[in-house]
Amino acid sequence: MSAVANGPGPEVFDVVVIGAGPAGEVVAGRAAEAGLSVAVVERERVGGECSYWGCIPSKTLLRPGDVIAAARRVPGAASAVTGEIDTPAAFARRDEMVGGYSDEGAVPWLLDRGVTLVRGRGRLAGPLRVDVDTADAIQPDAGTPAGTTRRLAARKAVVLATGTKAFMPPIPGLADVEPWDNRSATGATLVPRRLVVLGGGAVGTELAQGFRRLGTAEVTIIEGQPRLLAREEPFAGDEVGAAFEAEGIAVRTGCRVTAVRRGDDGAAPGPASSERRRPPVVVTLDNGDELTADEILVAVGRRPATEDLGLETVGLTPGRPVTVDSSLRAVGATPATGGSGEADGDGWLYAIGDVNGRALLTHMGKYQGRLVADLVAGRRDAAGAVPVEVAGERLIPRVTFTDPQVAAVGLTEQAAREAGLPVRAVSVPTSGVAGSSVRGVGLVGTSQLVVDEERRVLVGATFTGQDVQELLHSATIAIVGEVPLERLWHAVPSFPTVSEVWLRLLETYGL
Amino acid sequence: MSAVANGPGPEVFDVVVIGAGPAGEVVAGRAAEAGLSVAVVERERVGGECSYWGCIPSKTLLRPGDVIAAARRVPGAASAVTGEIDTPAAFARRDEMVGGYSDEGAVPWLLDRGVTLVRGRGRLAGPLRVDVDTADAIQPDAGTPAGTTRRLAARKAVVLATGTKAFMPPIPGLADVEPWDNRSATGATLVPRRLVVLGGGAVGTELAQGFRRLGTAEVTIIEGQPRLLAREEPFAGDEVGAAFEAEGIAVRTGCRVTAVRRGDDGAAPGPASSERRRPPVVVTLDNGDELTADEILVAVGRRPATEDLGLETVGLTPGRPVTVDSSLRAVGATPATGGSGEADGDGWLYAIGDVNGRALLTHMGKYQGRLVADLVAGRRDAAGAVPVEVAGERLIPRVTFTDPQVAAVGLTEQAAREAGLPVRAVSVPTSGVAGSSVRGVGLVGTSQLVVDEERRVLVGATFTGQDVQELLHSATIAIVGEVPLERLWHAVPSFPTVSEVWLRLLETYGL
Repeated sequence: MSAVANGPGPEVFDVVVIGAGPAGEVVAGRAAEAGLSVAVVERERVGGECSYWGCIPSKTLLRPGDVIAAARRVPGAASAVTGEIDTPAAFARRDEMVGGYSDEGAVPWLLDRGVTLVRGRGRLAGPLRVDVDTADAIQPDAGTPAGTTRRLAARKAVVLATGTKAFMPPIPGLADVEPWDNRSATGATLVPRRLVVLGGGAVGTELAQGFRRLGTAEVTIIEGQPRLLAREEPFAGDEVGAAFEAEGIAVRTGCRVTAVRRGDDGAAPGPASSERRRPPVVVTLDNGDELTADEILVAVGRRPATEDLGLETVGLTPGRPVTVDSSLRAVGATPATGGSGEADGDGWLYAIGDVNGRALLTHMGKYQGRLVADLVAGRRDAAGAVPVEVAGERLIPRVTFTDPQVAAVGLTEQAAREAGLPVRAVSVPTSGVAGSSVRGVGLVGTSQLVVDEERRVLVGATFTGQDVQELLHSATIAIVGEVPLERLWHAVPSFPTVSEVWLRLLETYGL
Repeated sequence: MSAVANGPGPEVFDVVVIGAGPAGEVVAGRAAEAGLSVAVVERERVGGECSYWGCIPSKTLLRPGDVIAAARRVPGAASAVTGEIDTPAAFARRDEMVGGYSDEGAVPWLLDRGVTLVRGRGRLAGPLRVDVDTADAIQPDAGTPAGTTRRLAARKAVVLATGTKAFMPPIPGLADVEPWDNRSATGATLVPRRLVVLGGGAVGTELAQGFRRLGTAEVTIIEGQPRLLAREEPFAGDEVGAAFEAEGIAVRTGCRVTAVRRGDDGAAPGPASSERRRPPVVVTLDNGDELTADEILVAVGRRPATEDLGLETVGLTPGRPVTVDSSLRAVGATPATGGSGEADGDGWLYAIGDVNGRALLTHMGKYQGRLVADLVAGRRDAAGAVPVEVAGERLIPRVTFTDPQVAAVGLTEQAAREAGLPVRAVSVPTSGVAGSSVRGVGLVGTSQLVVDEERRVLVGATFTGQDVQELLHSATIAIVGEVPLERLWHAVPSFPTVSEVWLRLLETYGL
């Protein structure tokens, strides 16, 4: 299976993948399982941003606060909970979940499938060619002299899966204060006494609440949009904002930061757990207000990791997302005519996961990885059909793991209307069913379906509330399966689960 | 809308419902919303067994132990939990959830819809006739002299919704010891020191674990089948049994009770919380072993509440479930020819909920109630079709709220094979996904799909594990919607949710 050409020529594989994050791992592993020879190039750690500095550590850090909040809502359990999170234990669990920041636990999955792991910085070097600068590897390969360039060639396809990096907005002084990004925040070993969070999207809201519950005394979120989680249904951001205010997180929406500096506020030193080694950060807002904090976390978006990827060697523009078609093929790449001849000349270059800018979510990157592996391997489904992307930009499931959570799939009501769909939205309180009452007191949230009135199928759904994360997949299946409303009516939710919101929603719709 | 005939004739309604439990409430309310005049007869409390002595109190009593167990699995939260449940607070919450055993909170929902509530024991008195013995009402109507009989007549339909009662097996001595049934157990105000539970089905397992976690020192479950939850997939009962043993609940499967008596075991009196007012119960097993306990809970099944329902006046047999067809019509009832003429002669009598013996679950009773209301009201769906029962005996969702939970829908693998379906089952560990790891350590469980290989659709699914209750509805929608496997493949579960077991299951299947 593995094909290596020593000597002057490149090492040749069927598929070369650049980036071994979730998307790259999946496409490499699945292509290898289909019998292709595959190399995957990784400069940092197999597992990628998600595993070490994204979902895994952030959700792990959120979980203690979440489960303690859940217990405090239950009469009979509340008094058994002190509410004091053991922060060192939470950090230790985070360290365990990220494998001590080593990819030792992640590599065998690739190797077991016969994938060749090439450590170093991969750059395109023309159609079907990838050069790997091994000097740039965080962890060099055993046996590969550091500083050499390994030249790889692909017979069938090159797949870009380099992901994104935190975007740093050009705010005067921001770079100078060495702000936190998702990496510093999820990797924290101390809890700052005061934290300012720039950005009220999923990353900003989750980490703001996470640190508040781990012990940060003052947390302020600054968001330019009128509400948190501005891309979701308006009620979602409103509910999260209200919950945040109630637990002492200041939410400043509709305002912007104009300047940031390190200064001295004359405040007393923080407690041991926030051991201040640097002067405080002073944040100036567009209304003139100044906020002082020990750390500032920047969570205002991501930029694609395409600046140093050799895109210019195949006619594409560095520093931008790689635009793809519905087969995840890079649009506008130099054809591979004259190449090995096995690849489809116009379709040798794929981009999956965050790097294509379509859906910056691990599960969508993995989905795209599965699709591309099947496309490149020539797989057909039971009916003989070529794999086609079904869960495209209109069908993205997503969960923000705040308390309350926000779980949504498909289009919001507004997005559906903007897309010209004849929709009607119905909503009910998530806490209005018996299944919510048995889970405790004071639960909140809203459940909403967006119905295409002509086709009588769902095009969107949002569930907010405590522990709604697993409700989402029911809506994802209903939407992807295009199950008609009349049929959904016969999908009986068990009593007393929170899923009975489905019943209330369909009744409210008029069924 | 409401039609009352005073004087010598009966009070006439379009629909007369006997029993105002969940099924009866739903059929009455929905028929009234459709413009029909409806009377509902209730001897006890509006809301029925489920609301006062079933799911609501049992799940409420289970919740404190469940959420504390969840917190103890989370590093960072575990040390904030003492593990001591505040039993009086748990009982107080139970009392609140059952409305203090008053139906004051449940009645307005009916009255707001114009339903006439008739309190008393309803008995059929021939086709389309119901006599109500008001002397037998737990709570007489204001203005109705106790002891009178109210005669009701239905123009269109009579709906039986009287539910079930606990079945007491004919074990020598059992009745004499005044055993607990679901009512005494869910209504307990003290925690027995030692409890024997007869029956390892959903009710028995839930209450056994519930009392163990509320403080019962010794709990023993006795089940005649080789495993707990014998109607579910074998792994379900095995996993629940293992978890029970690990938390000190003795599980005696494959054995039977031959005799029960009250005796004196010479044991020291129990602690204050189990204040013994009666001598202990001694249970003899078929292998000669004797168990001593302070209470014995009988949870070996239900019998239909049809003994005193006047079934003999319409040609049916008292004491047995009312057999129904797929329109929920009683099979074999005396036709109503010569009646008011509006009813379908052969189809005036319906039976919904537990009383028809099809699916002893609140949500299925409510589903049947919706169907019958629509049938009687002549409702048609958007395509003009008459309502048809889709979620019949092969498609029942069910959740056992033990820890680990057991959530299942459709057919087990064995049931599917016995039905002659060409199935293949695939299973994965529920705890094998990242979404499980972020929820804590030591989670268990199995997720399984049963696939019809010819139709390439699901016919069954089971999820065991912690907090899997909301995963079930995704499978219910997939099965009811008959979503092909190839399409399910595109329903992407969010990362990191436990719903990612769907991905692992479909990969294991070969997709």
